[in-house]
Amino acid sequence: MTATLTSAPAIVRTIAELRRRVSEYRTQAGPGAKVGLVPTMGFLHEGHASLMRRSAADNGLTVLSIFVNPLQFGPNEDFERYPRDEARDLAVAAEAGAQLVFLPEVKEMYPTPPSTKMTVSGITEMLCGASRPGHFDGVGVVVTKLFNIVQPDRAYFGLKDAQQVAVVARIVSDLNQPVEIVPCPIVRESDGLALSSRNVYLKPEEREQALVLSQTLRQVPAWIREGAAPGELKSRMAAAIARMPLAEIDYVEVLTYPELQAPSDAAPLRDLKMNLLAAVAVKFGQTRLIDNVLLNPTEVI
Amino acid sequence: MTATLTSAPAIVRTIAELRRRVSEYRTQAGPGAKVGLVPTMGFLHEGHASLMRRSAADNGLTVLSIFVNPLQFGPNEDFERYPRDEARDLAVAAEAGAQLVFLPEVKEMYPTPPSTKMTVSGITEMLCGASRPGHFDGVGVVVTKLFNIVQPDRAYFGLKDAQQVAVVARIVSDLNQPVEIVPCPIVRESDGLALSSRNVYLKPEEREQALVLSQTLRQVPAWIREGAAPGELKSRMAAAIARMPLAEIDYVEVLTYPELQAPSDAAPLRDLKMNLLAAVAVKFGQTRLIDNVLLNPTEVI
Repeated sequence: MTATLTSAPAIVRTIAELRRRVSEYRTQAGPGAKVGLVPTMGFLHEGHASLMRRSAADNGLTVLSIFVNPLQFGPNEDFERYPRDEARDLAVAAEAGAQLVFLPEVKEMYPTPPSTKMTVSGITEMLCGASRPGHFDGVGVVVTKLFNIVQPDRAYFGLKDAQQVAVVARIVSDLNQPVEIVPCPIVRESDGLALSSRNVYLKPEEREQALVLSQTLRQVPAWIREGAAPGELKSRMAAAIARMPLAEIDYVEVLTYPELQAPSDAAPLRDLKMNLLAAVAVKFGQTRLIDNVLLNPTEVI
Repeated sequence: MTATLTSAPAIVRTIAELRRRVSEYRTQAGPGAKVGLVPTMGFLHEGHASLMRRSAADNGLTVLSIFVNPLQFGPNEDFERYPRDEARDLAVAAEAGAQLVFLPEVKEMYPTPPSTKMTVSGITEMLCGASRPGHFDGVGVVVTKLFNIVQPDRAYFGLKDAQQVAVVARIVSDLNQPVEIVPCPIVRESDGLALSSRNVYLKPEEREQALVLSQTLRQVPAWIREGAAPGELKSRMAAAIARMPLAEIDYVEVLTYPELQAPSDAAPLRDLKMNLLAAVAVKFGQTRLIDNVLLNPTEVI
């Protein structure tokens, strides 16, 4: 057991106070000042902690934001019951090196219903965008707001939400937002389950069967080496997942990344000279889980 | 004749170079550094010059952007024939105190067709938004891009485009963009015609008849004092304009500002305790002109 020396991060609940603190840091730190932002919806796990640690290594000031954004939840989704645990989140933030925690109320972020809507076309119609209409519009607005409030040099996102990373990077590029998007690897339990705040919903049997996601994704490089075309790869993935009786597949998809275009089904994927995303969304009981692997086919040979 | 001492502003055509120059200024000027942005489509007149002079008085660095934004022109509008005169614009910029002129090509601002769209609802469906569908979506994207590129402390807009000012202010507020919007008064020719880059299109007879716009707007306070309700005020304005045979009315509108809501027609406007915008758009020949007056009814008594 190692005792880690950590200091409690400052908790900030208003935009004005957050801006004052960041500006204070920049003035004190001078021209080399760097600010990292880790935007989250809280109920933090080791995946979030890895983003904060990376930010703390890269930047003089790391801001963690915790905001369950109503705009990105559909009417039948889990906004109300989304898990929250502020006290535990603050302990995780302290341990991972965040110095400021931005914890606004909904009223602070949306004092009036926003009139401004953002839509990203071309990369939001598939994967999670297909089953969660409007989800990425809400993500776009809240991430843009957080960027404008914190004005970070870098922002850290986990690749578990690979489509979210692609959408945010596209908005940043399209609108010239002055921030560097840093995609970070998926963090997993020792048995392979990708960390997610929603994993707490899983009943023991569902959690056991959910291991099929990471097990299936681990086989993707071998299937590509064997010469699978996109259609065949998706069939193999779907068949492997469907062996679990509790698994209800939402999608099994294979797309170029970050363009999210379908690669030609006429050629084996091992000849593709682009990054490839193999992604799945599967419901176990009431809980929808996502997982993916991002790879360069020419490097799996 | 007074000789004015001016130094030629630096011309910058790339985003990277613009950012480098602004950042250089901020480093040199220290914590008190203030940057003002005057976004324009060029073909500058005294209205634009007044914005630059105001910015130069308020800020240590004034950036003028000149970009005819294809995204805010409809398919049948005048994007291709919009007047351009770079050499003259640079002379106006120098005289008015702009130190940096950002003159990007379309390819620099839109290297690929943007996937990100912004829409503002509630205040874009009337006035110019009604006759120019998609116009304010294009304005929103380009202004957001310019804010993100220049990162100004303040941005200056002329109230001749009063709806544009309201839309930009709403986007800034909705998305927490870290910039102060400074609305500036309409500048007019000595005979009352509101300055516009499009005035060059007017034939002599059209220009003569176009004076009816400012003449009509000048009567609005008196009509409000006399007790006109919104419907009656609009009728009087429309009748006054329609006396000119070349005038083809697009709209005559009376709305609260900046909410752009229709005030109740049941009461005289002089009882209204909100800012009021009386605005007109009228075609003379092929040229569509807009003009307006912004007033507080309780102060016109």
